[in-house]
Amino acid sequence: MKAWQKNIRSITPYVPGEQPKIKDVIKLNTNENPYPPAPEVIKASAEFDTNSLRLYPDPDATVLVEELSKFYERPADNFFVGVGSDDVISIAFQTFFNSGKKIFFPDITYSFYSVWADMYRVPYECKKLDSDFKMVKEDYYEENGGVIFPNPNAPTGVLESLEEIEDILEHNQDVIVIVDEAYIDFGGESAVSLLDKYENLLVVQTFSKARSMAGMRIGYAIGNDELINAMKAVKFAINSYTMNQSSLAVGASVIANKAYFEETIKKITDTRERAKERFKKLGFVFPDSRANFIFVTHEKYQAKDIFEYLKTKNIFVRYFNTPGIDNYLRVTIGTDEEMDKFFDVLEEFIKV
Amino acid sequence: MKAWQKNIRSITPYVPGEQPKIKDVIKLNTNENPYPPAPEVIKASAEFDTNSLRLYPDPDATVLVEELSKFYERPADNFFVGVGSDDVISIAFQTFFNSGKKIFFPDITYSFYSVWADMYRVPYECKKLDSDFKMVKEDYYEENGGVIFPNPNAPTGVLESLEEIEDILEHNQDVIVIVDEAYIDFGGESAVSLLDKYENLLVVQTFSKARSMAGMRIGYAIGNDELINAMKAVKFAINSYTMNQSSLAVGASVIANKAYFEETIKKITDTRERAKERFKKLGFVFPDSRANFIFVTHEKYQAKDIFEYLKTKNIFVRYFNTPGIDNYLRVTIGTDEEMDKFFDVLEEFIKV
Repeated sequence: MKAWQKNIRSITPYVPGEQPKIKDVIKLNTNENPYPPAPEVIKASAEFDTNSLRLYPDPDATVLVEELSKFYERPADNFFVGVGSDDVISIAFQTFFNSGKKIFFPDITYSFYSVWADMYRVPYECKKLDSDFKMVKEDYYEENGGVIFPNPNAPTGVLESLEEIEDILEHNQDVIVIVDEAYIDFGGESAVSLLDKYENLLVVQTFSKARSMAGMRIGYAIGNDELINAMKAVKFAINSYTMNQSSLAVGASVIANKAYFEETIKKITDTRERAKERFKKLGFVFPDSRANFIFVTHEKYQAKDIFEYLKTKNIFVRYFNTPGIDNYLRVTIGTDEEMDKFFDVLEEFIKV
Repeated sequence: MKAWQKNIRSITPYVPGEQPKIKDVIKLNTNENPYPPAPEVIKASAEFDTNSLRLYPDPDATVLVEELSKFYERPADNFFVGVGSDDVISIAFQTFFNSGKKIFFPDITYSFYSVWADMYRVPYECKKLDSDFKMVKEDYYEENGGVIFPNPNAPTGVLESLEEIEDILEHNQDVIVIVDEAYIDFGGESAVSLLDKYENLLVVQTFSKARSMAGMRIGYAIGNDELINAMKAVKFAINSYTMNQSSLAVGASVIANKAYFEETIKKITDTRERAKERFKKLGFVFPDSRANFIFVTHEKYQAKDIFEYLKTKNIFVRYFNTPGIDNYLRVTIGTDEEMDKFFDVLEEFIKV
């Protein structure tokens, strides 16, 4: 080994779901929205002045922050925007988890939390979910360096009630508690309503799921101005201009269209409820999902075999080769047509 | 102070140049290109399919990397792309500077280096430039944890020859040496030609300057596949999808147009040479610049006063309130028309 090779940081990165480059696939593996973004995006994109690209984007992301501020009816200084909620949470880890004490998150959860903790050398402890994949709130009463969990949880889709979240906040007033609400719009109650009561709460949301804009990379945190300013200082120590001009223009264009947002969500949740029925009929078992995916297992068939079979038919779902959940599949809710094809192939597999 | 406030990371962020929100300003403060990007951008932007935004972008940024690979005639696995060269260098700091030994960079240089070092807790030592703002290569012979410098340097515009860079590489084969070439296209010889000889060399370039695309946030590193893979692992531990779809589409569209690229550069460097003459006539002194800015000082007039006066006329240049350079102004090269107005106001100030 050469000397310079010794000091290269080695890290186990998060492995995202496949982004197949072939066409005509049914892609139910990365919790993307099957519907296009709100029509305002077409206009904003068409009107985008490419000449302005010679200039740096607004580091304060003002147009986007102002729209968010109106939508949530909260002051603009309560918002931190970043390149997807992954960027936002990654910066939150660097900003808030510096006590040297273990942070807590569930053992079955978004796999990036442990990657960020390793990356930023934040000690952590995973708290076991119960047999229904619910958080055991008492586990979070011990002294810790911070708490983070998604609600609904991923990859299970299980929702914690606002009451349970408030209980965790009640018992953790000395640390920052982050509620990662990537999937909240598909059927949960947001913790945003608790922000005025708990100044140590940070709520993170994204444009990638309910707003159909995964391709644009827009995420944001909502919290009091002190938390937000601390995140901004860290962000400005990494890169002054992360959010590019087109993200700002296109992102800001869609927020006000509540009707389209709600209509898309309803289509997806209706399809999800129908999918639950079909999974049940085929003998699958799953925790009740309030997200845009369902986490299913079958007594007779191995998840990995189903996953491989679906792939031969150009249908991609998500399989995690992780102890405890290695007999589950996470299936993103597509359009009705995509789900019909998916279930047809699934029935085919089960019959064979 | 509340308990949760104690563990918030406090950091002195980099302060970027102002992005004035008023119109009709002459903006010579952030080294932006006065000309629009290559015309291919208009087409790529118009053809951009907003429906595809529902999907995540390609985490490998394939279309962009393939174009870079063709342009530089190097394998695709030699390229790492990120959200501006700030993102790229920030990830390089995290990937390569882990020895615990001090990294070296010049005392007058891009101010982000010390911010990243503080952010990632990398010890560093600044090496004094000589009285001509040149690097003293012998200073970099001592044992260190890595070396980084911009070439041409910012904010001075001073170019180091390829010979001097090779000498630094010769004496630093056990660490990673990063040459930050944000401004190389305006009149320097790129260290890319040394890549096959020095496997510990990383060259960083950007779309923000010569390619007129600061607003799109595209930067990249060129190095051997081992360095690039190590950076990718770190990047994938932070955010799988940083480069959004529009950056990929619009970025990839311009690379092949060498003629426009060279024509724009020629316009800027011609204007720069004329600007040098005018500065001289007005009694300004400056190191010879090979970048798209000039770093000027005047015996009789305080830089800060000139800066403030220009601002009252809606002309923005860059002033650094930093010991050693606090009587200098960094003036970005604008169009001929902008520079004429700038010099008119400057003459006005000097006459007063």
